[in-house]
Amino acid sequence: MRTEIATLGEFGLINHLTKGLQLENESSKYGVGDDAAVLSYPSDKVTLVTTDLLMEGVHFDLTYVPLKHLGYKSAVVNFSDIYAMNGTPRQITVSLAVSKRFSVEDMEALYAGIRLACEQYHVDIVGGDTTSSLTGLAISITCIGEADKNKVVYRNGARETDLICVSGDLGAAYMGLQLLEREKTVLKNSEGVQPDFSGKEYLLERQLKPEARKDIVEKLAAAGIVPTAMMDISDGLSSELKHICTQSNVGCRIYEEHIPIDYQTAVMAEEFNMNLTTCAMNGGEDYELLFTVPIADHEKVSQMEGVRLIGHITKPELGCVLITRDGQEFELKAQGWNPLQESDQK
Amino acid sequence: MRTEIATLGEFGLINHLTKGLQLENESSKYGVGDDAAVLSYPSDKVTLVTTDLLMEGVHFDLTYVPLKHLGYKSAVVNFSDIYAMNGTPRQITVSLAVSKRFSVEDMEALYAGIRLACEQYHVDIVGGDTTSSLTGLAISITCIGEADKNKVVYRNGARETDLICVSGDLGAAYMGLQLLEREKTVLKNSEGVQPDFSGKEYLLERQLKPEARKDIVEKLAAAGIVPTAMMDISDGLSSELKHICTQSNVGCRIYEEHIPIDYQTAVMAEEFNMNLTTCAMNGGEDYELLFTVPIADHEKVSQMEGVRLIGHITKPELGCVLITRDGQEFELKAQGWNPLQESDQK
Repeated sequence: MRTEIATLGEFGLINHLTKGLQLENESSKYGVGDDAAVLSYPSDKVTLVTTDLLMEGVHFDLTYVPLKHLGYKSAVVNFSDIYAMNGTPRQITVSLAVSKRFSVEDMEALYAGIRLACEQYHVDIVGGDTTSSLTGLAISITCIGEADKNKVVYRNGARETDLICVSGDLGAAYMGLQLLEREKTVLKNSEGVQPDFSGKEYLLERQLKPEARKDIVEKLAAAGIVPTAMMDISDGLSSELKHICTQSNVGCRIYEEHIPIDYQTAVMAEEFNMNLTTCAMNGGEDYELLFTVPIADHEKVSQMEGVRLIGHITKPELGCVLITRDGQEFELKAQGWNPLQESDQK
Repeated sequence: MRTEIATLGEFGLINHLTKGLQLENESSKYGVGDDAAVLSYPSDKVTLVTTDLLMEGVHFDLTYVPLKHLGYKSAVVNFSDIYAMNGTPRQITVSLAVSKRFSVEDMEALYAGIRLACEQYHVDIVGGDTTSSLTGLAISITCIGEADKNKVVYRNGARETDLICVSGDLGAAYMGLQLLEREKTVLKNSEGVQPDFSGKEYLLERQLKPEARKDIVEKLAAAGIVPTAMMDISDGLSSELKHICTQSNVGCRIYEEHIPIDYQTAVMAEEFNMNLTTCAMNGGEDYELLFTVPIADHEKVSQMEGVRLIGHITKPELGCVLITRDGQEFELKAQGWNPLQESDQK
């Protein structure tokens, strides 16, 4: 079944997609339907704002990304940025530009994913824009959240001797992407064959349906820890570590043996004949949290489930260094994904 | 001179474009450079959020829209939505997706327009996203503003006997668009010829460099008037009046003879052999304010410079009616521009 979007028009489509939306948060005073949304935050909180623009063919490939997953991920990556400030996401606005290739049913699937993410993380959809594009799909989401005035965590607060921590594991989302890209190439030449992803579910899930680390932010609060610096890992650990070190004017030493990597990631890297540490350091899209804490919090963080100590902060003149398993030292390079250096543009 | 964007990369381009940005508003605590911007509004204010996604070929045509003007307009149309809530815009985030066709200099021009608009309206750029697109340019701007808790004006507050007011004049931006489209067609067939726009400067300015009605919101406040309903006219007066009447559950009667139209708009409509009232009612992109006030404010609003009374609110069963100069009555139809019913999509 395919319903053309033109049969509903702009306002009709917005009404259709936002039907039944309810506001869950105290701070959401008025949502979709006026010139602007109206929010009200208490005076002991600051308001956090982050935004992302995702373009078809650059950030996602619809030949293997289901629209519902895409919607879910588009919302979650914004929540991740709010958690990375030690905050809580509360509202999003959703802007979509769609070409004629897409039907009302496609938009329902995309929106269902966004709504599911919002339900899971208790975030309200309070506005947006729906329009057409000449080619492809564009998704722009802005997320608004809150944090205690004195507990916002920036990238620039890391100090010498601070411990460097990472949540979850790294490189799996990147391996999931490699796997999907390989299957896409294979399937081009053999129609009707279903790819066998058994034993690789974790990699696909990390790529297609990432989660934001709400749980880690809550655990830190429960343990009474306010990180000195924090950010989420979207472009790869190397790139993010360099951001923290540059903005904090410090150096760092991290240890290869302590970088958390899942078993499936290791198996897949072997299969692809790729360097596992490089994948974990530069893969990107992990949406894990990278943070630093004072050395006094050593005991607390080392007991925290899902958190790994990977190194420590040093004087700036010592640079950003990776120590390999065999004791060699390498200067970190930010090889993170750079969408503005891609070559397949017109 | 043309510098390829790839030579700077994503972070390089962001740094280049946002260099020297300063935060002007008390509520802007931290701007560009972290996972999210940090804002802090006093507890007697609500926070307003609005967003727009503009796509090349749908919302703008770069064959006659200079990039600096495009940047200016992209920002101003968002400010307009905040004023339409009886608020003041304070911050924006700017997301851009650009194809290889664009150079660093192009992005500088676009950003210069955005920065100019922000300076004029005292708005801070606090974040955004810069990435690539396979084809064309996409601009997504989110604007955050504030309003007094008890002075936010929605679309749903119009009551029977309220007066209907409009700022400025209508239809000029639409005539400016017609003019530019005509010249584009003419110039295709005769290269090197410069179009003669003398005597039509106002129409071009309304199309290419619209302003948001900050002054009207300030005048209303100075006169002690809180409108019962308000919105900005982006899709055309007919369409917006119907929004207010539907959401307020009322009808309206407006008078053709009172609709404010500039002399240049009238001349141009004559030249194009178009119905002038239709252009003014359905043209769109005027970014004027449409609002309703209690009849008790009649004297105050009728003395207000730049504001015109065009009719009044009625019972819902009377519908939305336009009374022509010769006394005929027509039911209003929302023929406003609908980007999702355009036909030149792929």
